[in-house]
Amino acid sequence: MSSGFKILRRDFTSRGRLGAFPTIHGTFKTPVFMPVGTQATVKAMTPEELEDLGVEIILCNAYHLHLRPGAHVIKELGGLHGFMNWKGPILTDSGGFQVFSLTPLRRITEEGVTFRSHVDGELLFLDPEGAVRLQFDLGADIAMCLDECIPYGAPPRYVEESTMRTIRWASRSKAAASSLQGMALFGIVQGGTDLDLRRRSAQALVDMDFHGYAIGGLAVGESLQERLDMVEAAMEVLPEDRPRYLMGIGLPEDLVTFVGMGGDMFDCVVPTRCARTGLLFTHDGRVDIRHSEHARSNKPLDELCGCYTCRNYTRAYLRHLHMCKEILGVRLNTIHNLHYYMELMAELRKAIEDNRLAQYQRDFFNNRDTDGWDNTQWDRKEGQD
Amino acid sequence: MSSGFKILRRDFTSRGRLGAFPTIHGTFKTPVFMPVGTQATVKAMTPEELEDLGVEIILCNAYHLHLRPGAHVIKELGGLHGFMNWKGPILTDSGGFQVFSLTPLRRITEEGVTFRSHVDGELLFLDPEGAVRLQFDLGADIAMCLDECIPYGAPPRYVEESTMRTIRWASRSKAAASSLQGMALFGIVQGGTDLDLRRRSAQALVDMDFHGYAIGGLAVGESLQERLDMVEAAMEVLPEDRPRYLMGIGLPEDLVTFVGMGGDMFDCVVPTRCARTGLLFTHDGRVDIRHSEHARSNKPLDELCGCYTCRNYTRAYLRHLHMCKEILGVRLNTIHNLHYYMELMAELRKAIEDNRLAQYQRDFFNNRDTDGWDNTQWDRKEGQD
Repeated sequence: MSSGFKILRRDFTSRGRLGAFPTIHGTFKTPVFMPVGTQATVKAMTPEELEDLGVEIILCNAYHLHLRPGAHVIKELGGLHGFMNWKGPILTDSGGFQVFSLTPLRRITEEGVTFRSHVDGELLFLDPEGAVRLQFDLGADIAMCLDECIPYGAPPRYVEESTMRTIRWASRSKAAASSLQGMALFGIVQGGTDLDLRRRSAQALVDMDFHGYAIGGLAVGESLQERLDMVEAAMEVLPEDRPRYLMGIGLPEDLVTFVGMGGDMFDCVVPTRCARTGLLFTHDGRVDIRHSEHARSNKPLDELCGCYTCRNYTRAYLRHLHMCKEILGVRLNTIHNLHYYMELMAELRKAIEDNRLAQYQRDFFNNRDTDGWDNTQWDRKEGQD
Repeated sequence: MSSGFKILRRDFTSRGRLGAFPTIHGTFKTPVFMPVGTQATVKAMTPEELEDLGVEIILCNAYHLHLRPGAHVIKELGGLHGFMNWKGPILTDSGGFQVFSLTPLRRITEEGVTFRSHVDGELLFLDPEGAVRLQFDLGADIAMCLDECIPYGAPPRYVEESTMRTIRWASRSKAAASSLQGMALFGIVQGGTDLDLRRRSAQALVDMDFHGYAIGGLAVGESLQERLDMVEAAMEVLPEDRPRYLMGIGLPEDLVTFVGMGGDMFDCVVPTRCARTGLLFTHDGRVDIRHSEHARSNKPLDELCGCYTCRNYTRAYLRHLHMCKEILGVRLNTIHNLHYYMELMAELRKAIEDNRLAQYQRDFFNNRDTDGWDNTQWDRKEGQD
């Protein structure tokens, strides 16, 4: 099976690579950051604004959309593309992470997972075949296998049992997707912090031949060193000619690091969620716009930034909007943070093209305060954007 | 004193008139609807989006901006125009309505009003001179005199005392503004439901010669007939060559009615606030987007509407966004409702130009269900947008 993924260039100074992934809704360049649009909207943004920022692919969430408004409703209305008016590629998460992080009650069996809706408490059941069908009905360009995202610190025996079950679920997912046209399917490597299990998980998926491979179970509480090791173990096994997607990653520091290890695809709620809490990414590091030091500042948020927000508004105005809980504040912050992320990815792609990714990484880490990078405060907890 | 206001055309079928009011930030055409941007932002909208909708002047609120971030801060940062990046004219409300509707404790004396901030409880004092200065520091193109908005149903004796005090405050406001360049000042007619007092209030202000005249104390609980009578009484006295501003008005039905009685300027939170609660204005009447009948509707909100929302999204998607409390839903609803209001005003101006406003009014009321127009549920309660 060919995924259509093409590697266009390799960086000689790292394991970074430049690629292109074609879908019927257009080709996206890798390494790519996918903004999260859980409920068929990247919070506070229109599709046109995303396009203007250079966003090429977004992520939506099968679990949330299954609950509201229902995949059948979205299918009737032309799939996610018609429903939300986004014309580019869409990757959908299978819902596994949300089932395991959001729902109050759940029971996992070999067959699938029974859980209660976090919206209205309805008892629901999801199995690997259903998750594939759900994503197909949503009109996903790339679907993910149903997996279990193992909690950090789970007992070794549970980690192994769960990882093996996720592998069996991947096999069932692949069989279910075999008759569905136009949708790529990615397997998800699990294995917790057990590096040997990570390698076995990756190998089992590679043997099944997916269009791409995700590394799951990251950013759930592990230390930075553990995370690096977990990614490294999977990378040793995953094939060169398929995209590698690091789910739920990450902070700017993560992106710079993992692109150098051969990561191709990333998604994270950090830029959009932090925008809503007033935490903003700049070339000088992070700015908490709530701080009183910005109350009278007529400076733009980031003097090196060319985004709409930085071209038109002061820190004082952004702080005012945030303190007054004004929607425009969320909009301006989101535009800025997403612009920062998209620019960072463009710089990383350019550095690969120019064979200077290692140098870029050194400069990046030398020029900033990375306090808090190795810190679980940033980890995913809720499976919502 | 000349306000620079010019009447360009009169409708022979009504008392409607077409005018133009010049300010140093540009000339706006009347009759005009001013979207409300209480806290230096029309909720959920960028200045460019307002411009695209044809908005020519917005209203900001001196009381709210005095509390947060403070008029001195906004002054330092280039006034409201620089602060919020809106290039057109700005009218500021003096803060009187907010002091009387929002603050938990207040004491009115001849000198001014002492009140507690609704944000942090700080004890504050505002007098007519201070309110003028505040609005000048904010960089208002049009400032309003400090007035007391009399509660509906107040005892006749209180109504008279308050109205007379508001007249004395207008005189002090005018004196305070005499040395301030580039800012127009409007007096505000009060008088409650007492029509004779309304006339006396209007006459006293006319004798002082303001750049324009507002009719205040509307939409606070009075019946439709009372409101019509209150406006009529003031209109009898106000001069033809000055703009008449109906504060806090109104619903589309109000705009169509009062433009025909010679109203020139209007502001109301209805289009923006209703957008946030999912109540939308269409050519078929009002649509509550929460209703389940829209859950699978692939129709645009309003098939006769050319706004961004109606061109690109279905009722099903708007309902989904609303049910999920997504910011994009508020944005799309606000764009639609403001577009509806701006189109309505453009149609009213065109009808005046074509000498057919009376016919326009008949068609407007014949083609719609106006249930609920004569209903105090729409009245202003909080002095916030």
